[in-house]
Amino acid sequence: MRLSRYFLPILKENPREAEIVSHRLMLRAGMIRQQGQGSFTMLPLGKRVLDKVCAIIREEQNRAGALEILMPTIQSAELWRESGRYDAYGKEMLRIKDRQDRELLYGPTNEEMVTEVFRSYVKSYKDLPLNLYHIQWKFRDEVRPRFGVMRGREFLMKDAYTFDLNYEGAKAAYYRMFVSYLRTFTRMGLKAIPMRADTGPIGGDLSHEFIILAETGESQVFCHKDFLSLPVPGEGVNYGNDAEIAGIVQEWTTPYAATDEMHDEAAWDKIADGERLSARGIEVGHIFHFGDKYSKPMGAKVQGPDGKEHNVSMGSYGIGPTRLIAAIIEASHDEAGIIWPESVAPFDIGLINMKAGDADCDRVCDELYAALTAAGKDVLYDDTDQRPGGKFATADLIGLPWQLIVGPRGVAAGEVEIKNRKSGERETLPLAAALKRLGVAG
Amino acid sequence: MRLSRYFLPILKENPREAEIVSHRLMLRAGMIRQQGQGSFTMLPLGKRVLDKVCAIIREEQNRAGALEILMPTIQSAELWRESGRYDAYGKEMLRIKDRQDRELLYGPTNEEMVTEVFRSYVKSYKDLPLNLYHIQWKFRDEVRPRFGVMRGREFLMKDAYTFDLNYEGAKAAYYRMFVSYLRTFTRMGLKAIPMRADTGPIGGDLSHEFIILAETGESQVFCHKDFLSLPVPGEGVNYGNDAEIAGIVQEWTTPYAATDEMHDEAAWDKIADGERLSARGIEVGHIFHFGDKYSKPMGAKVQGPDGKEHNVSMGSYGIGPTRLIAAIIEASHDEAGIIWPESVAPFDIGLINMKAGDADCDRVCDELYAALTAAGKDVLYDDTDQRPGGKFATADLIGLPWQLIVGPRGVAAGEVEIKNRKSGERETLPLAAALKRLGVAG
Repeated sequence: MRLSRYFLPILKENPREAEIVSHRLMLRAGMIRQQGQGSFTMLPLGKRVLDKVCAIIREEQNRAGALEILMPTIQSAELWRESGRYDAYGKEMLRIKDRQDRELLYGPTNEEMVTEVFRSYVKSYKDLPLNLYHIQWKFRDEVRPRFGVMRGREFLMKDAYTFDLNYEGAKAAYYRMFVSYLRTFTRMGLKAIPMRADTGPIGGDLSHEFIILAETGESQVFCHKDFLSLPVPGEGVNYGNDAEIAGIVQEWTTPYAATDEMHDEAAWDKIADGERLSARGIEVGHIFHFGDKYSKPMGAKVQGPDGKEHNVSMGSYGIGPTRLIAAIIEASHDEAGIIWPESVAPFDIGLINMKAGDADCDRVCDELYAALTAAGKDVLYDDTDQRPGGKFATADLIGLPWQLIVGPRGVAAGEVEIKNRKSGERETLPLAAALKRLGVAG
Repeated sequence: MRLSRYFLPILKENPREAEIVSHRLMLRAGMIRQQGQGSFTMLPLGKRVLDKVCAIIREEQNRAGALEILMPTIQSAELWRESGRYDAYGKEMLRIKDRQDRELLYGPTNEEMVTEVFRSYVKSYKDLPLNLYHIQWKFRDEVRPRFGVMRGREFLMKDAYTFDLNYEGAKAAYYRMFVSYLRTFTRMGLKAIPMRADTGPIGGDLSHEFIILAETGESQVFCHKDFLSLPVPGEGVNYGNDAEIAGIVQEWTTPYAATDEMHDEAAWDKIADGERLSARGIEVGHIFHFGDKYSKPMGAKVQGPDGKEHNVSMGSYGIGPTRLIAAIIEASHDEAGIIWPESVAPFDIGLINMKAGDADCDRVCDELYAALTAAGKDVLYDDTDQRPGGKFATADLIGLPWQLIVGPRGVAAGEVEIKNRKSGERETLPLAAALKRLGVAG
């Protein structure tokens, strides 16, 4: 993509309304525009990151056996009355009346609707296990939306729902999602630590929040340092093997880990000083087993091998992709701007023409652009007539992993400069060597 | 994907509520589930088709220079008061109040919001032309939603918006979208004919509906038979060459074509009998130039080369991907079910194991499945214990382009049967030859 044809509205000044670094950087880098209280347009650069984040989530959901569907945003109040949540939900639910005065709502979550889909079709244990997920907009009318996409009112959510014959099956399904989440966050360059969460009136120990460590995190978390070196399962992990999956979950739930709310000082004190990690964290995922909470009142039953009817045992599994973008930035930035992990970077490479209009610089840039694009790299080519200083500042701000800098002196010597955004390392290399460094054969 | 692990809730009976063939087939093939008046969940098979349709739309929008963004579904009434449309829009607009009693609405379209984005950042003609699009849910509270996803209340829409300095620029932008639409529909196996549409109080001739021909179409259309043989531009079409693009539009707007509403009997009578095509059609896209209708009241101005401020000249360009799925089915089905064009088929190949559980059949199927999947083909492998007759009926109903049928007799002879869903042709071939027929080297 040539920057001259792109829409990248960089802000020079720090926007006053932004209280946290990810909100500030997303506004400054032209990723988002606020449209209302807690509501944002993803501008082209933001949309590209969102697509990459969603693609990783999808791949890992599918790998773990989840099937993608897409439920509507608007739901009927009637459905929520079946579960008893319509009146209970409170003011966070956006309630709507249509032209015929029917009561509707903008879904804050989809347990009821997915249970309705399930009960309409599935009648036998033979069709289980089943895991249905979608990535769809949600609306929660928060009293005080803030921190940009970190706590919006309209936000994207990946929510998966599992259906099993009994608790044992539901636990295995829960474990598969647990492992899938470990892989998902790791692929985005994040260190995510599962922490036991409150299960409320349902009880049991099948509820975890996935917390990533970031200096600017919203809450205090406590964990054993072992988490920093625990191996994350590779893509060959066998989701068909319940014992293997349970083993991974066992390993990842054994060392101490707790959010402020669930913190146990007595257990914490037993850990040796040098093994303790007290840090700031951001919640990026939440998984939850809730048994027959919805299946029972809504009549989602299957016939079991015993010939009797059983309320299915369910769980739900959420990740907020829009929120996740902000969390990634909180975990990976510096004074100059964002530092994207390669897997979610909006472009792989920023190609900077220091003297656009100069025939030699233009020619070399065109050649590099063609070679990189042909090799499947996403390149943002700064072909504008801005000054070099402004171009460097923009490149650092938007945080592409690699910068390829083409100037008249280098071109005369057949060389370009290559800069790694994360390490800050710069190197001057002949053209072919620079391409090779970027993984492109000359 | 193994069918035993998939969620494909086929209906045996024709659902009573379905008045048209696409609605009936989408319900029967387990593509959609109705959730409310004019509101549908896309089940896994439907979601796959939707993804393929959206991918083609995106590729062709991007190729024509449009940039993808993503605006929220909920908008503020205040914004719509700026354009004067809030009070004018009528009951089709879903009006909402939040917990603070602020007036909101579920966007039926996005002219106001995208104009707000534009005016916030763009100040100079040097940043034009600009074309921003998104694919997002819309809600229109129709009095009588019907025909499944063909006329829903909550539906997906790709809406693009162009911004130019003056009418000449806006016309060139309009032409680029015109050509992009020709390519988009052709790639989906559709014959789309652009027909002049009413421009209302704005006047001019820059409004076209794209109508596809389908026997079961919703409206009567009239056109010259020349349209059936007009060449559709290839992927090498140069969107940077205004003259080339205008030439294509000229060619595609010269022969007579009109919807019932715009039909001109006098002009029609002048066409020779054998050259006339009177048929049923379905609208699948609408493009529209509206000048300064929004930019003027909303103050979306840029400085021109003359140093003066100009209201930008705008257009909008819509395609409904959910509706398009239904239109494709209307244009391509038979008594047995859907016949997917290859480009939008949910899977490329249906692999049918006629005797699941038979060691030889299972082995051959596993080998074929592995070879096809490794070659990048999407395969739905029917490994269930249903009878062959039921499997054939399902395969025809869901309409995958190719069926690969593995039975005990064939396996003993080292052969499989291959069936083309569209032509109905069947052929018995050795395994390697069957793979070759499907474009996979042995």
